[in-house]
Amino acid sequence: MRRLSAVLSLLLLASAATSRAQLKVASPQELGVIKVLLAQERAWNEGNIDAFASGYKDSPDILFIGQHISRGHEQMVLEYKKNYPTKEAMGTLGFTELEVHPLDDKFVVVLGHYHLDRTKKAGGAADGIFSLVFEKTDAGWKIVVDHTT
Amino acid sequence: MRRLSAVLSLLLLASAATSRAQLKVASPQELGVIKVLLAQERAWNEGNIDAFASGYKDSPDILFIGQHISRGHEQMVLEYKKNYPTKEAMGTLGFTELEVHPLDDKFVVVLGHYHLDRTKKAGGAADGIFSLVFEKTDAGWKIVVDHTT
Repeated sequence: MRRLSAVLSLLLLASAATSRAQLKVASPQELGVIKVLLAQERAWNEGNIDAFASGYKDSPDILFIGQHISRGHEQMVLEYKKNYPTKEAMGTLGFTELEVHPLDDKFVVVLGHYHLDRTKKAGGAADGIFSLVFEKTDAGWKIVVDHTT
Repeated sequence: MRRLSAVLSLLLLASAATSRAQLKVASPQELGVIKVLLAQERAWNEGNIDAFASGYKDSPDILFIGQHISRGHEQMVLEYKKNYPTKEAMGTLGFTELEVHPLDDKFVVVLGHYHLDRTKKAGGAADGIFSLVFEKTDAGWKIVVDHTT
């Protein structure tokens, strides 16, 4: 259902100014990056941080901006595992209101909201906005900059 | 002094892994976007929001992500003017720890910290992190995505 809601948000956004009959078809770029985000959502909700992290480029140059700036795939994964040590702490993640803004053939910016459903005991629910820069790599679309508020 | 400190931060960062004698020379891309940010800082501190806003691409497609998402140059300027109605409310802005991360020839990501010096009466001081996407346009390097935390 969450996956569906993310895709529907995208389609609804794409069609905001059009009638239902003129529903815009998502571009290969849009589908490519949305697919990565849906796979991340699924991996997270299976408690699999390594699979989640495969949505990011496996490079020491990637940037994760949260409370502070984290650099490189390795450090990011370590911090994810430290901050979310159990499946209960990971809770249930949902992305909504996804928007794909192409820069050029190789880079796109994606905005979205996340909601983390989690017991009070495990840290409580959380909501926020993110902006991502995706790069089209040989291994497919990968996140190279993540700024999550 | 603030301008100097921003440039020095960049140079220090660029040279982090090198000795003083091997100080890295900033690339034209780096200098191009830093110049825009220094001009923004100056404009802000002169109380000139329009000049500050000229650092952004004059397009309805630009994105400003703060507490919420603002879209387009016009809306952004309106919100800046609403949130900072006087020179006192604008305070004194300083950018530090600027980092330029090129994506390709036409796009770069810039990370940095801002500090807003302001009387308690005018809203108090503020600090935060930003990530920017710059585009090389016919009118020079311009911000197309601003995510400020």
